[in-house]
Amino acid sequence: MKKVTIGVDIGGTNTAIGVVDAEGNVMVKNNIPTPSHGDINKYMTELSDAIKELIRSVNLLNADIEILGIGVGAPNGNYYNGTIEYAPNLSFRGVIHFVTLLKEKFPELPAIALTNDANAAAIGEMIYGGAKGMKNFVMYTLGTGVGSGIVVDGNMVYGHDGFAGECGHSMLIPGGRLCGCGTKGHLEAYCSAPGMKRTAFEIMARDNASTSLLADKSFNELDSKMIFDAAEKGDKVALEVFEQTGKWLGQGLADTVHHTSPEAIFLFGGPTAAGDYIFKPTIGSMNEYLLPIFKNKIKVLPSQLKAGDAAIVGASALVYKELEK
Amino acid sequence: MKKVTIGVDIGGTNTAIGVVDAEGNVMVKNNIPTPSHGDINKYMTELSDAIKELIRSVNLLNADIEILGIGVGAPNGNYYNGTIEYAPNLSFRGVIHFVTLLKEKFPELPAIALTNDANAAAIGEMIYGGAKGMKNFVMYTLGTGVGSGIVVDGNMVYGHDGFAGECGHSMLIPGGRLCGCGTKGHLEAYCSAPGMKRTAFEIMARDNASTSLLADKSFNELDSKMIFDAAEKGDKVALEVFEQTGKWLGQGLADTVHHTSPEAIFLFGGPTAAGDYIFKPTIGSMNEYLLPIFKNKIKVLPSQLKAGDAAIVGASALVYKELEK
Repeated sequence: MKKVTIGVDIGGTNTAIGVVDAEGNVMVKNNIPTPSHGDINKYMTELSDAIKELIRSVNLLNADIEILGIGVGAPNGNYYNGTIEYAPNLSFRGVIHFVTLLKEKFPELPAIALTNDANAAAIGEMIYGGAKGMKNFVMYTLGTGVGSGIVVDGNMVYGHDGFAGECGHSMLIPGGRLCGCGTKGHLEAYCSAPGMKRTAFEIMARDNASTSLLADKSFNELDSKMIFDAAEKGDKVALEVFEQTGKWLGQGLADTVHHTSPEAIFLFGGPTAAGDYIFKPTIGSMNEYLLPIFKNKIKVLPSQLKAGDAAIVGASALVYKELEK
Repeated sequence: MKKVTIGVDIGGTNTAIGVVDAEGNVMVKNNIPTPSHGDINKYMTELSDAIKELIRSVNLLNADIEILGIGVGAPNGNYYNGTIEYAPNLSFRGVIHFVTLLKEKFPELPAIALTNDANAAAIGEMIYGGAKGMKNFVMYTLGTGVGSGIVVDGNMVYGHDGFAGECGHSMLIPGGRLCGCGTKGHLEAYCSAPGMKRTAFEIMARDNASTSLLADKSFNELDSKMIFDAAEKGDKVALEVFEQTGKWLGQGLADTVHHTSPEAIFLFGGPTAAGDYIFKPTIGSMNEYLLPIFKNKIKVLPSQLKAGDAAIVGASALVYKELEK
């Protein structure tokens, strides 16, 4: 009997679903649109049909399958209540009792649980990835925003209301750049992929950098992949973007270390594909800001979850944490 | 049989010892000098003699006493190892295996444990004070420095190496004031009692405030109590010190909320005796910086540990957490 879990990742436009084996490999996967119609009951039917179809297809591959449960990663996902609450990028309004609705569709499954995307990534790292065996670590996910998941003594920190781990909204530069949440100066406004673009534009403006490889791109065109490609070609602006992003990120990581004293911090997401360009200045800066008792002790590591499947795999890992209880 | 615990608070110059009842009242207490001789074995003898004397005196008061254990609060105290490690303000060098040495003196006691002062205060708040029944809260101690203790799911967060909860060394103003640890801009350099003094001097310098009630005090004379007294008399500089300190502290508390999502943050220490002068701007500023999901939800409360005895009482509470295990 091969034991598998199902991971569901709800994004603003797409919902990805996958059947994941015990080693964290996606066996089969599928996508449905995350609807803009706002009708949660209709979406639950669409989602459960897609999950059932996927289960059928994996049963065709191997009849000896036992499904342990479904893990869901969703924006503004609240683990305690199994709810999605006031998610700005989804069409469903207010508080959606997602786990309750999904349990109605799959009453036979032993575990159905939900958390936000960054927490799911952290649990994925713990169950299948580089954090196997670690009791205290933190995951930073760098993408459109900056998310994080904190693990203490082997357990996710959800906090009093289920929303812990919003390190992307730590203050980095008081009075600084406008953050998507409306406050000025949060880390997310500097260290996300759009934050890197903003840094590139600041540097080009400061240096009148007309010869930069980035100088022909509009604000809406430029993305972090282009900055990486330019850095690879030795572009001065692009190299400084990584240097500066790492310095800022290291400052934020130091604050996180001072809070929870992790063994390691994992970085996940597009910008981390740049390797040393981002890791070197991040580690240097973090150690500069740390208390002596922490200096040069905290590992900063790339996530070992596969980029394309990480969201599904992370969500699926939630099932194992749920069954532990 | 009345069950009691013993609390030991090791400070730079004094070691305070008290016998504490189950409600957190100090029944008897004593002080010995924290020596400058650097001889740990000699100090352990002095300390255990003082503890034994205290036990004798409490037995004279009430013969029906059962001693559950000893809790120790110490600078750079490491809970996991029971050690005091490289404490800059103590004469003992390197790593002191304090719990092991104390157990040799009191082999009959069921629980002996050690942590740092701020963690001890947090545990005291949880066992005897305002955090009774709370599962997720944070304690900030404002004094010569700024310490903190973080509780998640009812347990102290010690982190990978036992040194978690150093929120006083979170970055507040990048490139700002020199902190005692050597880095610039940490919260401790702004929100500790000496930080408030520095703020007063900055404001007097900026405004040429020769009529302020604080203007006749030297840098080495001025303390946070004098600033409070001046604020009570309506002194403009003193009032601005509290306003500004609260704004800075609120920024730091917001970062802590974004990390661990506590139900409440408790403030302890001299500056917090100023009540609304410090609490109002702190709460206002914290809410300004918080994500919408946290705004106006997090309680910021004064510690309910009695000021004079809090360090002893906090340390003694460690015994109950130890016996829970």
